[in-house]
Amino acid sequence: MRNLNQHTITQAVLDRIHPDTNPRLKVVLTSLVNHLHDFAREVALTEVELMQAIQYLTAVGQKCDDKRQEFILLSDVLGLSMLTVALNNDKPAGCTEATVFGPFYVENEPEIALGGDAANGAPGEPCWVEGQIKGPSGEVIPHAQIEVWQADADGFYDVQKPELQQAQARAKMKADAQGRYYFKTIVAEAYPIPTDGPVGDLLHATGRHPWRPAHLHFMIKAPGYETLITHVFRDGDTYLDSDAVFGVRQSLVAAWVKQEADAKEGGATTHLHFDFVLNPI
Amino acid sequence: MRNLNQHTITQAVLDRIHPDTNPRLKVVLTSLVNHLHDFAREVALTEVELMQAIQYLTAVGQKCDDKRQEFILLSDVLGLSMLTVALNNDKPAGCTEATVFGPFYVENEPEIALGGDAANGAPGEPCWVEGQIKGPSGEVIPHAQIEVWQADADGFYDVQKPELQQAQARAKMKADAQGRYYFKTIVAEAYPIPTDGPVGDLLHATGRHPWRPAHLHFMIKAPGYETLITHVFRDGDTYLDSDAVFGVRQSLVAAWVKQEADAKEGGATTHLHFDFVLNPI
Repeated sequence: MRNLNQHTITQAVLDRIHPDTNPRLKVVLTSLVNHLHDFAREVALTEVELMQAIQYLTAVGQKCDDKRQEFILLSDVLGLSMLTVALNNDKPAGCTEATVFGPFYVENEPEIALGGDAANGAPGEPCWVEGQIKGPSGEVIPHAQIEVWQADADGFYDVQKPELQQAQARAKMKADAQGRYYFKTIVAEAYPIPTDGPVGDLLHATGRHPWRPAHLHFMIKAPGYETLITHVFRDGDTYLDSDAVFGVRQSLVAAWVKQEADAKEGGATTHLHFDFVLNPI
Repeated sequence: MRNLNQHTITQAVLDRIHPDTNPRLKVVLTSLVNHLHDFAREVALTEVELMQAIQYLTAVGQKCDDKRQEFILLSDVLGLSMLTVALNNDKPAGCTEATVFGPFYVENEPEIALGGDAANGAPGEPCWVEGQIKGPSGEVIPHAQIEVWQADADGFYDVQKPELQQAQARAKMKADAQGRYYFKTIVAEAYPIPTDGPVGDLLHATGRHPWRPAHLHFMIKAPGYETLITHVFRDGDTYLDSDAVFGVRQSLVAAWVKQEADAKEGGATTHLHFDFVLNPI
């Protein structure tokens, strides 16, 4: 195996994968190597460009820490995250659609009681959120675990504020026996994804804006049902048709309704109602 | 642009590239997005697998520092580096072939006089290396800049030995007016590429050995000629037909010859003669 050229090297690389390799890994790697090599041949990649790509990917990796995930962001802006969501969430009609997970989820967020305050001091207009978790036949799903997270009025998630000592605008709760959930938070606002890293450089170089339409993230888990990872988007937002990460589903767009403050609803002057339909396993 | 599915999302991503984008960047990104999405569709990439890929690439980036370049290593073992060399080095017959740059080059290596010692204390059998730099018509190329680097008898480059304070087994020199170069170093030995990082994990998971056949790196620069980045490989090495990074060219294999020590040649008991032919620009 000497003197490989641009035509013979791909098969030589594939031939190195040992027959005992995990079959799925072999399938994925084979396709990856074929496409990676086809890409390089198709554009006649130069050695300078390969080194630029290596330096770029290195910078993406080095931008990551326990609160920042630049590779998720890169996957998001290249449409790979939403493509993967689409490939894996072909749910029956009537089930709530999924969308991108995003880079800002954090495990072990604070647990709140129903009716509790998820904002925990995050700046923003007070908002009451409520709804119900059901199955596709309308059956109540009791006690689902609901995780929510969102940006604040400044356009930042808590993990983007290094001075913050506590979680803000993220919480975990359990729906009640009738599948109902309700909590206080702040109104979701449109915000730019972080542009102070290599992903921002890519957006800038290709003339793309970094904005995401206002949304509230949900992850909902209940025994016997597929975990649902989704957002609720805010109707009327400027960026619903140009989401930087391609995540908008019309079925997930809902109205944040202005209303009279009600003490029972934590004095919130805006109200969001959204019911979720989970897909049985 | 809402409700994108696995078929429509690729064009939507491409449509975001602004018309004023650098034309070459547009070409490269368009091909990259097409192949990345085709790959995901072809293998029906799962959300768990995408997250594993993101974590893997993050680990590759975080393994890099000023002495370790894990993304070059990843490109090398996937055959992308050698493919790119092949795409860009279709030199006329008679010119010395190029091969992979590798992850172990360091700028500003020590400058030595002709006949000087590149080893600088690196363990290994003393070796005398000499040859001449010419053009394709046999014309002498005077005063080319020659950079050399190699692993030592333990199988390590100096940058892999954190306790080392000085450069070892790497040096820079100028050929003389007749294009001749000569220096003392140590005999190149086969060695495994570093397997203590994510690239090692990939080799392990696919049953691949990490060995490279013994070689001595050269980078040669002269005005009016293409820079040549190559190795000289050691004849008879076990790994010449299974180089972990696919870099072996038969024309670059040479004999390291045992001989009587000669004081003029630094007392070296092994001798390598290799002439290089550069390609005019």
